Amino acid sequence: MKSATRRTASYTDDKRKILVRLRRMEGQIRGIAGMVEEERYCIEVLQQLASLRAAADGVALKLLRDHMDGCVRRAVEGGNGKAEIDEVMELVRRYTRS
Amino acid sequence: MKSATRRTASYTDDKRKILVRLRRMEGQIRGIAGMVEEERYCIEVLQQLASLRAAADGVALKLLRDHMDGCVRRAVEGGNGKAEIDEVMELVRRYTRS
Amino acid sequence: MKSATRRTASYTDDKRKILVRLRRMEGQIRGIAGMVEEERYCIEVLQQLASLRAAADGVALKLLRDHMDGCVRRAVEGGNGKAEIDEVMELVRRYTRS
Amino acid sequence: MKSATRRTASYTDDKRKILVRLRRMEGQIRGIAGMVEEERYCIEVLQQLASLRAAADGVALKLLRDHMDGCVRRAVEGGNGKAEIDEVMELVRRYTRS
Repeated sequence: MKSATRRTASYTDDKRKILVRLRRMEGQIRGIAGMVEEERYCIEVLQQLASLRAAADGVALKLLRDHMDGCVRRAVEGGNGKAEIDEVMELVRRYTRS
Repeated sequence: MKSATRRTASYTDDKRKILVRLRRMEGQIRGIAGMVEEERYCIEVLQQLASLRAAADGVALKLLRDHMDGCVRRAVEGGNGKAEIDEVMELVRRYTRS
Repeated sequence: MKSATRRTASYTDDKRKILVRLRRMEGQIRGIAGMVEEERYCIEVLQQLASLRAAADGVALKLLRDHMDGCVRRAVEGGNGKAEIDEVMELVRRYTRS
Repeated sequence: MKSATRRTASYTDDKRKILVRLRRMEGQIRGIAGMVEEERYCIEVLQQLASLRAAADGVALKLLRDHMDGCVRRAVEGGNGKAEIDEVMELVRRYTRS
């Protein structure tokens, strides 16, 4: 059943690692808020925001890889995968949009 | 055989459309060169470069979709696809790198 | 004196707004961590990460605008600005790198 | 007079270098069209499109730097620059949009 397949999280094995990275990102944002509170130099704040963005992209790429090798693979093996490929493309479009 | 699979182009059906878009991009670049030759205002040139980038990304997204629904799908159906998924992830990484 | 100029934060007037946005981003990350904890569907997590990235970019663009119209402007008016323009370009490079 | 200022191209000194790069990009696109014509492997075509995008961004960053240190600087020195900063921000927004 398709909806059951879609509810599976492909990243179960990487869950702890991903949560560690997300906690670190939460700390990064609190650090950035502290810098803004202290009125630190704009460029320093902007550099920290760029680091946060890189961290978010790192997590996204890890999740996307797990998803491709999990949910998408299983859907294709099950004779389908059209909807899953569309979802992946929509996400990639959102990330590369220019 | 894997290398044979990899040589297949998944975009055969979209080939004409893709070539039309590439010809248009070639014209865009010649137009940009003409603007630079005439020393047109920087921002106008930059806007045309942004359009060219958007056009290149549009072609890339089309090719990537065809590739996912073609080469990657066939590799997964053939019981593999690891190498193909790695290739796709490497490309997505290159496009989102921050 | 240049180092004094550089220590100025150009975003003082927008400080409260920026802090509100950063708090919201902190909440977004905690929400994403909660989704991962519950093993929610990969694509839903990825969409939230894309929203977070958009929020981070929104804050960055606000800070950059304030910086251009503040620190960079003052440096240029003071007869210089070379270092400030280099810093801005380095940041823009980091954000568009492909 | 503002419109006169705006008509100036800040990249005059880099014009030859920029034109060389644009000619190279034109060659890259023709090469990509040739690859598509021969139905070369999707990933190879996508890698060439990523190179083209990087080349376009390289030219854009060069033009933007010249513009900041030319048109924007002159406008600010002339006691204004608001419109020029808005234009630059609009472009940066277009390039980082996520």
